[in-house]
Amino acid sequence: INMIMQTAFFLISGIIKKDEAIKAIKDAIKKTYGKKGDKVVNMNYDAVDAAVDNIVKVKVPKRITGHELPPTVPEEAPEFVKEVTARMIEGKGEELKVSQIPADGRWPTATTQWEKRNIAVQVPEWDEDTCIQCGQCSLVCPHSCIRMKVVRPADLKEIKAPKAFKTVNAVGKQFKGMKFTIQVSTEDCVGCTLCFQVCPAKKKGKNGKATGEKALKMVANTEAVRKRESRNWKIFMSLPEVDDSLINPTTIKGSQLKRPLFEFSGACAGCGETPYIKLVTQLFGDRMLIANATGCSSIYGGNLPSTPYAKRADGRGPAWSNSLFEDNAEYGLGMRQTVNKMASQAIELLEAAVAEKLITRKFANELIKASQKTQQEIEEQRARVDELKSKLEDDNSAVARRLYHVADYLVKKSVWIFGGDGWAYDIGYGGLDHVLASGENVNVLVLDTEVYSNTGGQMSKSTPRAAVAQFAAGGKKMPKKDMGMIFSTYGNVYVARVALGANPAQVVKAVNEAEAYDGPSIIIAYAHCINHGINMALGLEQQKKAVACGHWPLYRYNPQLEEEGRNPLSIDSKDPTIPFAEYALGENRYRMLKMSNPAMVDELMEMSQKDVDKAWRFLKSRFAALEG
Amino acid sequence: INMIMQTAFFLISGIIKKDEAIKAIKDAIKKTYGKKGDKVVNMNYDAVDAAVDNIVKVKVPKRITGHELPPTVPEEAPEFVKEVTARMIEGKGEELKVSQIPADGRWPTATTQWEKRNIAVQVPEWDEDTCIQCGQCSLVCPHSCIRMKVVRPADLKEIKAPKAFKTVNAVGKQFKGMKFTIQVSTEDCVGCTLCFQVCPAKKKGKNGKATGEKALKMVANTEAVRKRESRNWKIFMSLPEVDDSLINPTTIKGSQLKRPLFEFSGACAGCGETPYIKLVTQLFGDRMLIANATGCSSIYGGNLPSTPYAKRADGRGPAWSNSLFEDNAEYGLGMRQTVNKMASQAIELLEAAVAEKLITRKFANELIKASQKTQQEIEEQRARVDELKSKLEDDNSAVARRLYHVADYLVKKSVWIFGGDGWAYDIGYGGLDHVLASGENVNVLVLDTEVYSNTGGQMSKSTPRAAVAQFAAGGKKMPKKDMGMIFSTYGNVYVARVALGANPAQVVKAVNEAEAYDGPSIIIAYAHCINHGINMALGLEQQKKAVACGHWPLYRYNPQLEEEGRNPLSIDSKDPTIPFAEYALGENRYRMLKMSNPAMVDELMEMSQKDVDKAWRFLKSRFAALEG
Repeated sequence: INMIMQTAFFLISGIIKKDEAIKAIKDAIKKTYGKKGDKVVNMNYDAVDAAVDNIVKVKVPKRITGHELPPTVPEEAPEFVKEVTARMIEGKGEELKVSQIPADGRWPTATTQWEKRNIAVQVPEWDEDTCIQCGQCSLVCPHSCIRMKVVRPADLKEIKAPKAFKTVNAVGKQFKGMKFTIQVSTEDCVGCTLCFQVCPAKKKGKNGKATGEKALKMVANTEAVRKRESRNWKIFMSLPEVDDSLINPTTIKGSQLKRPLFEFSGACAGCGETPYIKLVTQLFGDRMLIANATGCSSIYGGNLPSTPYAKRADGRGPAWSNSLFEDNAEYGLGMRQTVNKMASQAIELLEAAVAEKLITRKFANELIKASQKTQQEIEEQRARVDELKSKLEDDNSAVARRLYHVADYLVKKSVWIFGGDGWAYDIGYGGLDHVLASGENVNVLVLDTEVYSNTGGQMSKSTPRAAVAQFAAGGKKMPKKDMGMIFSTYGNVYVARVALGANPAQVVKAVNEAEAYDGPSIIIAYAHCINHGINMALGLEQQKKAVACGHWPLYRYNPQLEEEGRNPLSIDSKDPTIPFAEYALGENRYRMLKMSNPAMVDELMEMSQKDVDKAWRFLKSRFAALEG
Repeated sequence: INMIMQTAFFLISGIIKKDEAIKAIKDAIKKTYGKKGDKVVNMNYDAVDAAVDNIVKVKVPKRITGHELPPTVPEEAPEFVKEVTARMIEGKGEELKVSQIPADGRWPTATTQWEKRNIAVQVPEWDEDTCIQCGQCSLVCPHSCIRMKVVRPADLKEIKAPKAFKTVNAVGKQFKGMKFTIQVSTEDCVGCTLCFQVCPAKKKGKNGKATGEKALKMVANTEAVRKRESRNWKIFMSLPEVDDSLINPTTIKGSQLKRPLFEFSGACAGCGETPYIKLVTQLFGDRMLIANATGCSSIYGGNLPSTPYAKRADGRGPAWSNSLFEDNAEYGLGMRQTVNKMASQAIELLEAAVAEKLITRKFANELIKASQKTQQEIEEQRARVDELKSKLEDDNSAVARRLYHVADYLVKKSVWIFGGDGWAYDIGYGGLDHVLASGENVNVLVLDTEVYSNTGGQMSKSTPRAAVAQFAAGGKKMPKKDMGMIFSTYGNVYVARVALGANPAQVVKAVNEAEAYDGPSIIIAYAHCINHGINMALGLEQQKKAVACGHWPLYRYNPQLEEEGRNPLSIDSKDPTIPFAEYALGENRYRMLKMSNPAMVDELMEMSQKDVDKAWRFLKSRFAALEG
């Protein structure tokens, strides 16, 4: 776009002669993009030439006519959104009074839903008859825009769902007699096409043969589509959430029947990071605390005007904060220790409350000994805590007041530490290592793009050998740090290496296991990224190749299994089937070097292949040693 | 001693009744030392009782008679030592003028030799006829007080060595016709007995049977001994250093024929750390730069009034500095990069000097391409640099002046990073990891006492499971961090795990290999410590047990071998022969728990044994995988 605009500027302004201007622009293109290859250079040349041919004078009328702006946020938005968020969306943040800003630094969540961006050119359309209800489209959507529910016909009747709201008979024994629906929030969709790419369903024609179509197709996002689907979206959201007793959250489908509590973020179209975060919020969002390292995830996770972390209907959702780049693991450990301290205080106060006859011994025991392993058990404990609080509400004794204040900590909390590879492998590594070695029950999710993404692509210790990055212009010379194997040496740390594009079921399993393990856990998640120089629509395919070539082996190291006398290590991907170069040279970060220094790229590819072979052999030997 | 002095104070002052005072002191003993066991408590009780029985009135004369203090430092000491160091030794540092302190922050080294402490009650005496000239006594001496030389008879004649200066025919083909001597600096010796403990020689009686004596015996450090041996020490030091062409520095004996450039530090008697440092200075001290982390090694390494890092006769010796606890690896990396930059500038300037005909092409090439792998080659290059400097000395051209300034960097430098486990495993770990991953040629020596020693025994990530430390009063619950295996995952980092008491030859080999490897190296060295709660005279024996039980496996991971197609990993210790508990319960840090919580200690010992078995299996599997 800047080449087109430059060309137009010089041609219209006439401050340099046309031919001179075009030559200078093209020279600059050659200089800037030369190392990215002829294809990129020629695309830019074409943009300049097309701009020359297509300059058209547009008459600007004195005032705007025939077009009315909708309100910034709808009338039904909360007061804060209408009075504060909306002003910021309008670019009038400086008009806000200090008194309108939360005094304690807490900022309301779940506000992205009020900022409809309507930026997708094409949006997915669901074919309910072809759909196999697997949930993969929902799982991979980076913006939580495609969702699914199983509902009772009675619920549909009650809200008088129109015909345009599509449903189909739900698949699965436990859903007998119920309806299944998939709904897209087209106003929030960015048109990345990942849902369409991943859809495994094959549409059959009348002759019973595959038509080549899927259960999703990308259609133009017209005004008619917007109107229809935004209405459908409201209907979808008004339908009750799926009963947890019907859901197995350790499966893809089960996890996707739960409401994401992270939605409509400002991440890039096709982002490889956000689906992991969304998944975690689907499983544990109602009881999560998140410490977030600086990086992409702290930008799309907490930028203003609106915030993507969301809430259930009852107001429960993740509490999120970003401290510094370097201390994020410690920050999360502090959250864990605070929660533990509050919970142990609550238990002490329960004992005191029994002694003072405020509650019965039996009720106190129920509260203290409650199993809280499943969502249903969590909700049961919440009901008990509500009962406790109602008993204490009108009691002014010191014990009652103090217990009332900390009673919510009797419900299990899930503490998460999010960050990128720049944080985990480099800047925050010392702290991360210390926190994992502490034995405390924290869950770390590393969104691994193998490069500092947010700051524009600097080399990290996760960057593979041979990849071009800032500070590694000639291709990185050192091998990639094997952080998963490193942390597996502790023996009491849960470690998983996952890639959503390669094995989504393993991702869901790993997230569940990490959270269930009563000790430190780390999940290292491959995230494709614009910094890799790929077509982001094919990001999941590229993840598959990363695993297939052995560069990104999938595994889980679960200390819980060892306690049960089993091998703690499970290798979840197969022996490499393609060479490293086949994966790598599909990405511009590697291909760039091929153009600038072909001799060097061959040497680096050979070394990288050795790195991959060695790491794979190491993994297998680790498995064998743990069998003993 | 404080129990004795307390008792004396209360009995003499009479401010509390005798019986009351003794009861209060004994109660305090029980409270303070109870957890260390009855033996320790009773020793303190006995000290109190003995004090009661032995209070004697001493008449203090009005003035000092019959005893003349020697000068603080001898007349032959350098001016700085006489004017600055001596004042500080006398406790009159506050009388120094600001102008007497070096303005640029550099502090003269090699000054401990002027501060004779004369604190040993017993000192080793050498039996030249029993000695097998192995060098182990010299190797293990923590204070560099026992040394050896091979000299020519002509040299002895020249200095008119008296009869009291003992020599014997030197063993070894290359030393034919030469004399061997071992000399103790009794004025610097602290009487730790490690040299005596390690001596493997067996004295035979006239009947040819072993007498039970060794080649060293501990004798009373009388005034006569002091006079005789301090004279002998001066004779020893005045004899020429051993010719490097006669020395194989990769052997114990060879390394010990080289002069230590670290001597007479203020470390504890029997310190397990300092022998490693001394060894490194013997091999590379004339060209070393040292970045030292905060901890014991920064205290005994650079405390005032005197400094133990020393110099050869030509003034060359280690340059040493301590920055912060947390950034020591980075500090050392900066030294490496500075040295590299200066060397590359010197090479550029050599080219310019050839162009300007200041030197010949041939001479420049000799300087640039010089092999500098052995001590002799280093000295040859020094001679070339001297020649270069003499050629440039009187030339005022810009190239000559600049080249003169950086010419010394044409001689290879050896950059070392020293620190304890608190630094390497915990506080400086993030930086250490980053520096090792950089691929730069730095050598890291971790003096691993498995606990924060200097600050009084806090738990580090090196602290083994079950050991009692501060913050781990009930015995550490987490397993020890396997830092050696962690760094071996990089593949391009030289890693060695060594223990001087268990395999001294392997230590010498590892130090040589680490320095020779043109990339990052780390040596993790077991150091027994007063914090372990052991009889320090038996520290080396305890090191043997640490290795024998498999807690401290010895190995070297040398990437150089991999480049040659060989297995980079050598395991240098045998399969465990004793249980972990046999090693551990010989140390008070483990035994303490046995008294306070016997049930827990059994459980922790069992878990520790599993840790050891697992780590050993891991090491073997790593070896097997690398064979492939």
